[in-house]
Amino acid sequence: MLTSAWGDWDIGNFTAIDLIAATTNAFNAALISRRADHWKRYTIVGIILLAVIGGLAGGISRDVLLNDIPAPLLNPWYLILSLAAAALAITIAYYPGQRFREGLFQFATSLALPWYAVVGANKALEADLPYISAVLIGIIGATAGRFLVDLTAGLTPKQFIRGEWFVGTAVLASVVYVICDAGLGLTIWPASLISFTVAFLFRYAAIWWHWEEPEPWEPEELKATEVERPRIQDQLRAEFHPEDQ
Amino acid sequence: MLTSAWGDWDIGNFTAIDLIAATTNAFNAALISRRADHWKRYTIVGIILLAVIGGLAGGISRDVLLNDIPAPLLNPWYLILSLAAAALAITIAYYPGQRFREGLFQFATSLALPWYAVVGANKALEADLPYISAVLIGIIGATAGRFLVDLTAGLTPKQFIRGEWFVGTAVLASVVYVICDAGLGLTIWPASLISFTVAFLFRYAAIWWHWEEPEPWEPEELKATEVERPRIQDQLRAEFHPEDQ
Amino acid sequence: MLTSAWGDWDIGNFTAIDLIAATTNAFNAALISRRADHWKRYTIVGIILLAVIGGLAGGISRDVLLNDIPAPLLNPWYLILSLAAAALAITIAYYPGQRFREGLFQFATSLALPWYAVVGANKALEADLPYISAVLIGIIGATAGRFLVDLTAGLTPKQFIRGEWFVGTAVLASVVYVICDAGLGLTIWPASLISFTVAFLFRYAAIWWHWEEPEPWEPEELKATEVERPRIQDQLRAEFHPEDQ
Repeated sequence: MLTSAWGDWDIGNFTAIDLIAATTNAFNAALISRRADHWKRYTIVGIILLAVIGGLAGGISRDVLLNDIPAPLLNPWYLILSLAAAALAITIAYYPGQRFREGLFQFATSLALPWYAVVGANKALEADLPYISAVLIGIIGATAGRFLVDLTAGLTPKQFIRGEWFVGTAVLASVVYVICDAGLGLTIWPASLISFTVAFLFRYAAIWWHWEEPEPWEPEELKATEVERPRIQDQLRAEFHPEDQ
Repeated sequence: MLTSAWGDWDIGNFTAIDLIAATTNAFNAALISRRADHWKRYTIVGIILLAVIGGLAGGISRDVLLNDIPAPLLNPWYLILSLAAAALAITIAYYPGQRFREGLFQFATSLALPWYAVVGANKALEADLPYISAVLIGIIGATAGRFLVDLTAGLTPKQFIRGEWFVGTAVLASVVYVICDAGLGLTIWPASLISFTVAFLFRYAAIWWHWEEPEPWEPEELKATEVERPRIQDQLRAEFHPEDQ
Repeated sequence: MLTSAWGDWDIGNFTAIDLIAATTNAFNAALISRRADHWKRYTIVGIILLAVIGGLAGGISRDVLLNDIPAPLLNPWYLILSLAAAALAITIAYYPGQRFREGLFQFATSLALPWYAVVGANKALEADLPYISAVLIGIIGATAGRFLVDLTAGLTPKQFIRGEWFVGTAVLASVVYVICDAGLGLTIWPASLISFTVAFLFRYAAIWWHWEEPEPWEPEELKATEVERPRIQDQLRAEFHPEDQ
C-alpha cells in the first residue's frame, strides 16, 4: 500500500531519509531530557522512552491521521535506530560549554524538521487530502514528538512560545512542497528537494539572524503574570557570534 | 462513506453546523489562551495553533476512534474557518470588563458543546458501536480540544474540576440522542434537534443557577494540599446578576 | 476480525481477562486521583473520567495503532465495569494506614500490567508487525492510561521516573511473549501464561526487594535543579517490612 505510489527504489530512499530524521529526533529528545530546563530526574528507562517518543511520535501521529498502520511500527529500523540514538546520547557526557555539539544538533534538527514536514505533506497529498490539510499533517509529523517530550517535562511545548520558527519552518516546507507537487506538477524528488532546501535555508537564517515568532499585543493585566522565557537565541548567539558577548 | 447514511442534503447541513461548532471552539481557544490563567507568553504562531487544536482535536479524535480519516482533514473549511477565527480573536483587544463579549462566548460555547456531542453520538451509532460507547465518543468529540489546550497551558483540564457541567452537558446530549435514535426510532434531524435543545437548556440553566459538579468527600490529609480554584460561577454571576455584588 | 485468529472460546477468555485488567486499572486510577500527590480538587465527574481513561486508554491506543476500531469501544463491558470500579473507589473511604488495601492494589496492578502487555504483544504479532514493534505495543497498551492520568494531575508520568520497574515489567512480558510465540512456536495460551507468570514474578520481586530503575550519571549543573522524589519503595517497605521502621 505504502509502496504502490512510490515504487521500490523511491521508497527505499524516502525511508532512508525518514529514518535519519527519526533517529536525529530521538537523539535530540534524549539529550534534551538531560538539559536543566527539562530535567526531572528521569531514569535510564525514562530517557530511552523519551527518545522513542521524540523519534517516532510524529511519524506515528501522521500515519494514524491518514488511517494507515504507522510506518515506524511496520519497519523495525525506526525503533532500532531510536534505541541506538538513546544509548549514544546517554553515554555522552553532558557538560557546560559544549559549543561544537550544540551547533551540530542545531544542524541536525534543521535537517530533520523540514524533512519530516515534506514526508507528511507528501503522504497527505497521496491520500487525496486538501492542500491545507497537507500542511497541517506536515506540521504534526514534524513537531508532535517535541510536544509530548515537553508536556512530559511539565513545560509549555516549544510550538507555542518564542523560538527559531520551529512551527514556521514546518509550514514553509509543507507549503512549498504542495506548490511544487500540486501546483507545478513536479515529481516527488525535485519537489522534495526544493521544499527541503527552502525550509532548511529559512531555518538556518532564522537561527543566524535571530528571527523569532512575534508575540501578540499583550494587555496590562497579563504582564503581571508574565513568565520569564529563557531566550534560545541568546544561547545560540553565544555560540555563533561569541564576539557579541 | 461519510455520505452513505446521511444523503447529500443531510450531510450538507450536518457539516454546516459541525463547522460552526469547530469555528466557535477555535475562537474560544484563541481567546482563552490570552486569559491570565492560561497565558504563557504564547507567540502568534502558538495562539493560531491553539485555535486549530481547540477547533479540530475533538472531531479528529472522534473520527480516529471510529477508524475513519478525520472529517476535519477531508474538508478544508474546518481549517480555513479555524484560522479565520484565530485571526479574529487575536485582533480583538482583550481588556477587563468585557461583559457583553463574555456572555456571547458563553452562549457560543453552549451551542458548540452539545452539537459536537450529538455529532459524535450519531457517528458512533452509525458505526454500530454500543450505546454506552456512543456516549463516550460524544464526550471525547465535545471536549478533547479543551483537554489539550489546558494541558498545554499547564493547567488541570476543565473536564476534571468544578465548572458549569462541561462534561455533564456532553453526556446529557449524547444520552438523549441515543434514546431518540436507538430507543424511539426517530430519524436524524428530530433526534438531533431534541437532544441539542435538552442539553443546551440544561447548560444554560447550569450557568444561570450556578449548578456545579459535586466534589467527593475530601479526607483531612488532602485539605492541606488543597488548590484554591477560581470559581467560574463567580465571574458569571458578576455578569448575569450584577445586583448580587 | 478479532475473532478470526483466536476462535470463540479463546476470545471469550482473553476478553474476560482483558476486562479484569481494564477494570483494575480503572479502579487504581480512581484511587490514585485521591492520593495527596495527585489530588487537584477533582469533582466526582472528573474522578469517573480519570477512571475511564486509566482503564481504557491503553487498550484504545493499542488498537488505534493497529488500525482497528478499539475493542474497549466495541464491547460495552469495558466501560460498564470501569464505571462500576469508579463508583466503588469513590465510596471507599481513603484514610491513612490502609495497609491491607495498598497491598491488594499492588497485587492487582501487578496482575493487570503484564496481562495488558501480553494482549498488546499478541495483537501486534497477529497484525504481522515486527517483533520489536510488538514490544512497543505491549508497553503502550499497559502504560498509556497512567501516562494520561499523571499528565492530567500535572505530574511527571510514572514511566519516566524511579519506581518498581513499571515499564520494565511491560517490556519483560512482551519480550517473553514474542519469544514463546514467534521463537518457540507455542500456541496462544501457553505463550500467554508463561510470559504473564515471568513478568508477574519479576514485578513482585521488584516490589519485594526494592529494585529500581537506574538513574543516569547526573551532571553537577542538574543537581541544583533536582526534584525530591517521594520514594514509592519507602511506602511499600513500611507495608511489607514494618519491622524495618
